[in-house]
Amino acid sequence: MRPIDALVNSLSEAQVVTDPDVIDSYARDRTFLEPGKALGVVLATSRDDVVTTMKWATEHRVPVVPRGAGTGLAGASVASDGAIVLSLAKMTAIRELSPADEIAVVEPGVINADLDRAAREHGLMYAPDPSSYEISTIGGNLATNAGGLRCVKYGVTRDSALGLEVVLADGRILNTGRRTMKGVTGYDLTGLFVGSEGTLGVITAATVRLRRAPIAPPSTFAAEFGSLRDAGAAVSAIMAAGCQPSLMELLDRATLQAIDDWRNIGLESSTQAMLIGQSDATDADAMVERMERLCMEHGASFVAVSSSPEEAEELIGVRRLAYGAKERMGACLVEDICVPRSALPDMITAIEAAAVRHDVRIATVAHAGDGNVHPVFIFEHGTLEPPAEVWAAADEVFRQALALGGTLTGEHGVGLLKQRWLELEAGPVGTEIQRGIKAVFDPLGLLNPGKAI
Amino acid sequence: MRPIDALVNSLSEAQVVTDPDVIDSYARDRTFLEPGKALGVVLATSRDDVVTTMKWATEHRVPVVPRGAGTGLAGASVASDGAIVLSLAKMTAIRELSPADEIAVVEPGVINADLDRAAREHGLMYAPDPSSYEISTIGGNLATNAGGLRCVKYGVTRDSALGLEVVLADGRILNTGRRTMKGVTGYDLTGLFVGSEGTLGVITAATVRLRRAPIAPPSTFAAEFGSLRDAGAAVSAIMAAGCQPSLMELLDRATLQAIDDWRNIGLESSTQAMLIGQSDATDADAMVERMERLCMEHGASFVAVSSSPEEAEELIGVRRLAYGAKERMGACLVEDICVPRSALPDMITAIEAAAVRHDVRIATVAHAGDGNVHPVFIFEHGTLEPPAEVWAAADEVFRQALALGGTLTGEHGVGLLKQRWLELEAGPVGTEIQRGIKAVFDPLGLLNPGKAI
Repeated sequence: MRPIDALVNSLSEAQVVTDPDVIDSYARDRTFLEPGKALGVVLATSRDDVVTTMKWATEHRVPVVPRGAGTGLAGASVASDGAIVLSLAKMTAIRELSPADEIAVVEPGVINADLDRAAREHGLMYAPDPSSYEISTIGGNLATNAGGLRCVKYGVTRDSALGLEVVLADGRILNTGRRTMKGVTGYDLTGLFVGSEGTLGVITAATVRLRRAPIAPPSTFAAEFGSLRDAGAAVSAIMAAGCQPSLMELLDRATLQAIDDWRNIGLESSTQAMLIGQSDATDADAMVERMERLCMEHGASFVAVSSSPEEAEELIGVRRLAYGAKERMGACLVEDICVPRSALPDMITAIEAAAVRHDVRIATVAHAGDGNVHPVFIFEHGTLEPPAEVWAAADEVFRQALALGGTLTGEHGVGLLKQRWLELEAGPVGTEIQRGIKAVFDPLGLLNPGKAI
Repeated sequence: MRPIDALVNSLSEAQVVTDPDVIDSYARDRTFLEPGKALGVVLATSRDDVVTTMKWATEHRVPVVPRGAGTGLAGASVASDGAIVLSLAKMTAIRELSPADEIAVVEPGVINADLDRAAREHGLMYAPDPSSYEISTIGGNLATNAGGLRCVKYGVTRDSALGLEVVLADGRILNTGRRTMKGVTGYDLTGLFVGSEGTLGVITAATVRLRRAPIAPPSTFAAEFGSLRDAGAAVSAIMAAGCQPSLMELLDRATLQAIDDWRNIGLESSTQAMLIGQSDATDADAMVERMERLCMEHGASFVAVSSSPEEAEELIGVRRLAYGAKERMGACLVEDICVPRSALPDMITAIEAAAVRHDVRIATVAHAGDGNVHPVFIFEHGTLEPPAEVWAAADEVFRQALALGGTLTGEHGVGLLKQRWLELEAGPVGTEIQRGIKAVFDPLGLLNPGKAI
C-alpha cells in the first residue's frame, strides 16, 4: 500500500485529492512560482482531519504544505515535490462571536471579509484588511501576519490575534494565548505563530480581537502633488500633527499613468504623486480638513475632499485600480519593503533610480503612513520567471531598504521569494536561533520546508 | 582563583559588588520573597559588560539573574543561590529619539517616566505606564510585558516594542525586529523576548514605538455605584458605545474603605464601587459626557466630571492612593488575574466569596476596561510568607479566573509566585514547547533559572 492510500483510508476518498489537475490548482499561490509535484491534497473539514494528516505525515515522513485560499504573494503556500497540500479552506465556522468581550473564535478557512461582516452586525469590525480581504482566509492572514490599508490606525494581524489552537507536526494539539485583552503567562507563542507561514504548526482555530466599528461615515481626501518629496513631507506632517488617519496611501507617477491609460482619470501631466487619506474618527471631518490644509501647505496642487460614502469610494477607487492597471501592462513581481516613515521619499527615489539603471518598469504604491512600500516590477506577459534585470533591480531595492533602516517585507512575508535576501536582515545569530525554534516545533522538518526562515 | 575573581579582573572592582549587604539590596524585588545567597552583583554600564558577564557565566556555569530597578511584583528578579545578579540599572542612555519616525532607541536602565518626558518634548509619549512608571526601568517593563492604566487604549509594552538588542547566554549578540512600524521577516523574536523575564537573553537596547501625545487636556469622571454589578455593567456599556477611554479603573468597597480610613474621602456607606474613567481624545469632553450618561443609566448614584487638570488629578488621585492605603493595613500579596471583560462582575464576586470563605482580607482594584483585576490579599505585617489561608484564597481566585476564560497574570508576570499554577494554564504540550524554546536560547539553563516558564 502506498502511503497516500493509508491517508485515504484514515480520512475519506472525497477528502484526499490525487487528480493531478486538481492538485495543480491547490499547489500555487498568486506568484509566478512553479510548484513541485505534490502527492495529493487534503481538504480538511475539522481539527481531527488535521490531526490525522499530521500523524500520517510524521509516520511516513511526508512534508506538508498548509494553505488557505492561496492568495499569498511570496510563495509561502507553493507546493514542493513529494508534499501533501493541506487545505484549510473548508474549515469556515465562526465558532463564537462575543460582542461583550469583542472577540471571535474562528476556523482558519473563514474569509476575512465574512468575519468583518459578521462583526458589523454587532457594531464591531475585524480590523486587518489586506487588499485580498474578499478572498483571503484568516488562517492565511495569520500565517503571513497580513497587513492592509487600515493598519496605519489599527495595526497588523498580529495585533488582533489573542490565542490559537494549533496542530503540531506530530499531531499534538497546542493551545496558545488567551481570550483576554492582556496576559503574560509564559512566552508569547501566539505571536510566534503569526507570520510563521505554516512552518511551526497548523492553525485550526484563532481567537481574534474585534474592535468597535466607526459610527459615522469616514471622511476622505485625495491630493495631487508635483513632486514625490512634497507628498512624502505631507505624510510626515499629517502623522506628526496627530491626525490619526485610518488610511494613508501614496501612488507614484508610474502607477497613476497605468491607471489613467486604463480608465482615464484625467491625470494632469504635472502630477507626480497622489496621496489618498481617510479618517474614521468621531471628528473625521475636522481631521480631514487638517490633513487637506497640511497637503496644501506642503505643495499639493489640488485636494478633493468628501464625506459622502459614494464620493469616498470614488477617491479610494483610484487606489483599488492600481494592481489591475499594472497587470494589464505585463506580468508583475509585487514587492513589499517597509522603511521608517521619514525614509519614504528616499526609498521611492531609490526605486525610481533602480528602474532607470536596470531599464525595468516599476510602479509603486505605498501604505505611506506605515512606510510600507509596494514597488511592482512589471515584465513581459507569458514570461515564467522575472528576467535577470528585474531581479537585479529588486536586489538593489531590497539592499537600499535595509540601508535605510527598513525591512525586506512589511506584510507579505518571506515565503520562497525572499529566501535569498533573508540572512542579510536576520544575521547569522538570528538565523541560527530561528532554525532552533523551528526544530522545537517540527524536529523532522515536515511543515512547509524551505519557507519563512 | 575563585570564578568571581576572574569576573572582577575582566570588568573592574567597582562594577562587581561582593559586599553581602549590598548584594542583598540587589537580590530582592517588591514581593515578600526571601532571595537565595548570590555570589555578587554586576553593575553593567555597557553592552560589552553584559557580554563579558555572560561569557564568564557560561565558562563557569554560573546562573545569572538580570534585573532593572527591582520593582517587580512576581519575584522574577529575586536572586537564587550561587547566582550573579546582573543589574542593568546603570545603562540609562536614550541612544536616539526620532520624532519623524516616532521611535526611540533606549538602554534597559532608562526609567519609564524619563523616556516619556523626553518624548513629550517632541509632542510624543511613551504609552505603557505601569503604576511604577516613576521608578521602574524600560528593561524591566519589557521583561515582564508591563501594562498600566493607559493600556486600555494604547496596549501593553509588547505593543510598543519594535526591536531589541540582546546578549544571549553564551555572550553572542542577537538583534531582533526592526525600526519600522510593520515587518514579517522571520519569526517574531521581539515578541518572544517581551515578557520572558530575562530567561532567554539580556536586553541591552530596545527600539520602542512612541505615539503622539494628546493635544488637549484629558477629561475625567469618577462615578459611585451601590453595587459592583452595576459598575461592571457600566464598564461594558461604555466600551460597547465606542467611547475609547484612555483610563478605566474600578475600585471595590474594601479598597475605598481602606482609602477613606486613611484620607477621609467622605465615602458614603451605600457606595460599593467606584469607577474612574478618562478620555484623551480630541473630543474628550463629549466622550466623558457620554460615559457619565452611561454610568447614570446603569445605576450610578453620583458622577463627578472635570476637564481641569488639577481636578482630574484629584479624581484619579483616589486610585493612586489604593496601594498605600492597603499597605497601611498589613503585608500585601498583590495579584493580577485577567478575565474577558464581560466576566468582570463574576470575577469580583468570586473574589469576595473567597475572602469570606477563607476569612482573608482582599481589596480589589481593576483596570476594568481590560478585565485586568488586582485583588490584594492583606495579611499581618511582619509575617514573612503569606499564611496558608491567603494561599488557599489565592488558589481559589486563580482557578476561578481560568474557569471564566481568563489568565493567571495580566501584566505582572509569572516570576516565582505563579509557578505552582502555571501548568494549569499552559497545559502539558505548551509547557514542553516553552521549555524547548528556552533550551534554544540558553541550553545550559543559566539565565534566570526557575522563572517565567
